[in-house]
Amino acid sequence: MSDTTRPPADAKRSSRPNTSFFRSRWVDAPDGVEELDPAQLAPGFRAGGAHCGLKGGGRTDIGLIVCDAEAVASSILLTRNASAAAPIRVCRDRCERGEIRAAVVNSGNANAETGAKGYADAVAMCDQAAAQLDLQPEAVAVAETGVIGVPLPIETVLAGIGEAARALSGAGGAVFSDSILTTDRWPKRCTLRADGVTLSAQAKGGGMIEPGFATMLCFVQTDAALEDADRALRAATAASFERITVDGQMSTNDTVLLQATGAAGAPLPEGLLDAVLLQLAIEVVADGEGASRVGKVQVAEAASVAEAERVARAIANSPLVKTALFGRDPNWGRIAQAAGMALAGEQLEEIGAGAIDAAELGQDAAEAEIGIRLGRGEHRAHVWFSDLGYEYVKINAEYTT
Amino acid sequence: MSDTTRPPADAKRSSRPNTSFFRSRWVDAPDGVEELDPAQLAPGFRAGGAHCGLKGGGRTDIGLIVCDAEAVASSILLTRNASAAAPIRVCRDRCERGEIRAAVVNSGNANAETGAKGYADAVAMCDQAAAQLDLQPEAVAVAETGVIGVPLPIETVLAGIGEAARALSGAGGAVFSDSILTTDRWPKRCTLRADGVTLSAQAKGGGMIEPGFATMLCFVQTDAALEDADRALRAATAASFERITVDGQMSTNDTVLLQATGAAGAPLPEGLLDAVLLQLAIEVVADGEGASRVGKVQVAEAASVAEAERVARAIANSPLVKTALFGRDPNWGRIAQAAGMALAGEQLEEIGAGAIDAAELGQDAAEAEIGIRLGRGEHRAHVWFSDLGYEYVKINAEYTT
Repeated sequence: MSDTTRPPADAKRSSRPNTSFFRSRWVDAPDGVEELDPAQLAPGFRAGGAHCGLKGGGRTDIGLIVCDAEAVASSILLTRNASAAAPIRVCRDRCERGEIRAAVVNSGNANAETGAKGYADAVAMCDQAAAQLDLQPEAVAVAETGVIGVPLPIETVLAGIGEAARALSGAGGAVFSDSILTTDRWPKRCTLRADGVTLSAQAKGGGMIEPGFATMLCFVQTDAALEDADRALRAATAASFERITVDGQMSTNDTVLLQATGAAGAPLPEGLLDAVLLQLAIEVVADGEGASRVGKVQVAEAASVAEAERVARAIANSPLVKTALFGRDPNWGRIAQAAGMALAGEQLEEIGAGAIDAAELGQDAAEAEIGIRLGRGEHRAHVWFSDLGYEYVKINAEYTT
Repeated sequence: MSDTTRPPADAKRSSRPNTSFFRSRWVDAPDGVEELDPAQLAPGFRAGGAHCGLKGGGRTDIGLIVCDAEAVASSILLTRNASAAAPIRVCRDRCERGEIRAAVVNSGNANAETGAKGYADAVAMCDQAAAQLDLQPEAVAVAETGVIGVPLPIETVLAGIGEAARALSGAGGAVFSDSILTTDRWPKRCTLRADGVTLSAQAKGGGMIEPGFATMLCFVQTDAALEDADRALRAATAASFERITVDGQMSTNDTVLLQATGAAGAPLPEGLLDAVLLQLAIEVVADGEGASRVGKVQVAEAASVAEAERVARAIANSPLVKTALFGRDPNWGRIAQAAGMALAGEQLEEIGAGAIDAAELGQDAAEAEIGIRLGRGEHRAHVWFSDLGYEYVKINAEYTT
């Protein structure tokens, strides 16, 4: 399973350095950012969680987050997969996308390919959350992640939502973050303070990771004043979750939600939302199913941005390039082949070793950057991707449904 | 490496049943076909091989095949990869595609991304073969397969061509077939007789296998009279090598060559060329790098053939479906997800378990057929694909350049 009830490998969580949130070489964070305890949500938000049995081992599998501030501006982005899960369809059909106050989530069951019952169950989750929080149902988003094609034990889930509501707290960021994890080996979350505003965020990855925008869940809360929440979220997502791939598989359940209260009376520092989403996106790649390394491919001198992106995605999704990243093989021929495939039928001049920089594939660092110049124009694009190793096969072949 | 100098695993060659050439459940061979020794070429053809050192272990790595009949009708199909190798460019630039008398091949070096020297080397190979055979250079095709980006040791190769020319024989089918193998675990070849005509064929696969038409080499010889060799080859290829994928990677070196003398004065039995190419294509999948099983996905009820094919390829190339085939997991949710990804942005009604037949994924047979009905129209398409297991990672990650 890509998106399952399997436990995050707790033993491996410590494999990730805990120095600071912004740990990727590819993320430029604004100056003067202070890191707070990620359990602490941005002012005006509370979250809670509960265990209802969708995941084993007593782990938190129901989460609830709510904005209590007077005003809220929100934006929500949903997967474009035509086999979209019930919660995606319910959000599309019912949410006031600019005025979302709360989100209810479960992990362990994607509620995808579950028919009319699945849709009714997702509606019931929203309604239960709205009732508990005294909100209109259209102010509540629902997000789910886990196995596909299995009906929800809805009574248990509804009871779990009640329990999560009773646990709501401004210090609920960590438990909410835990409530969305599936095959993640470590939680992806932060609370940051800068220029008088606070931003908290929680994300999860796993498998089925390629955009559209990425195949994952991400929630962002802030007390900053956003002029246009939708525009800010779309721009930050386009440069982060839309630029990553684990297995080239667009999920049925992707959701990104941004909520901003404006209560701090100040804007977000320039670049902060982008940096946070990019760090989270790179964490999703680094923690992709079976992943051990993150690659970044830079395509330059393309005839158009679309062409550059097509080539970058072909390279990032080539199993030959991904196994070379895993095997630390600076195999530039596979990069040339994948680029040529993306440009099939066009009379590309031979690319040649001199136009390809594959050296970092062969090095030991956890982050490797490769580049290719096409000599066809002035446009560029880049994509981050995970490697392909034995663990990916093990996770996806040995745990059968 | 996908396409390398590594030896075929001789120890595993016997793992393939040697009952008869047409052993796939998916191939309908015409009645009354007699199998001959595959060393025996169709009348009017001779082939030979030599070892010049591109592959280790003294294995045959240079091959030559020539038609001695009065007349020859030929067709050649070449990869559309924009990073096409030198031999592809030379064939495109110089061959009289309808009048190809001979082909010279090497395995162990793809002569791809080798610049002006590579092009000159491929021309020199043609010229050397033409001189040895007393032919015009435009009557000689050149095909190469192996590592990318490494210059040919051209003097050794030219000497090898001379040696292969001295070894030419009507019984050279087996040695010619050996001369094109790279990571193949077993040779793919046949000589068949039916209705007074003979057809011999040799193919190789490995990795970088997805069409365009497939990423492989295939040579077919016959003494049958073909009304339109090009049309016959295109139709047979469209239904075989254009319908397979190992790793979704279009190669830089794909070549299919058909030569027909007409000397038998009779046409090919209906369906014979198609059956031979389909069996060879399925062998290429079965012997894909690291492959242990072959899947066939049937997409039905699509709005168009193009849509059906897009969905079939998305399913066949999904690493989640491929690991499920390897792990014998009848995971229909992954099929629904991949179909939804191929139809992203279209408001597909939920597909549901009832429209997906994934049962054979979970069974033990080496060939598994799966199906999905989209409920959007009346069109169909199918694709064959290999599984994704530990061996694929091992082959492609552990042998570094």
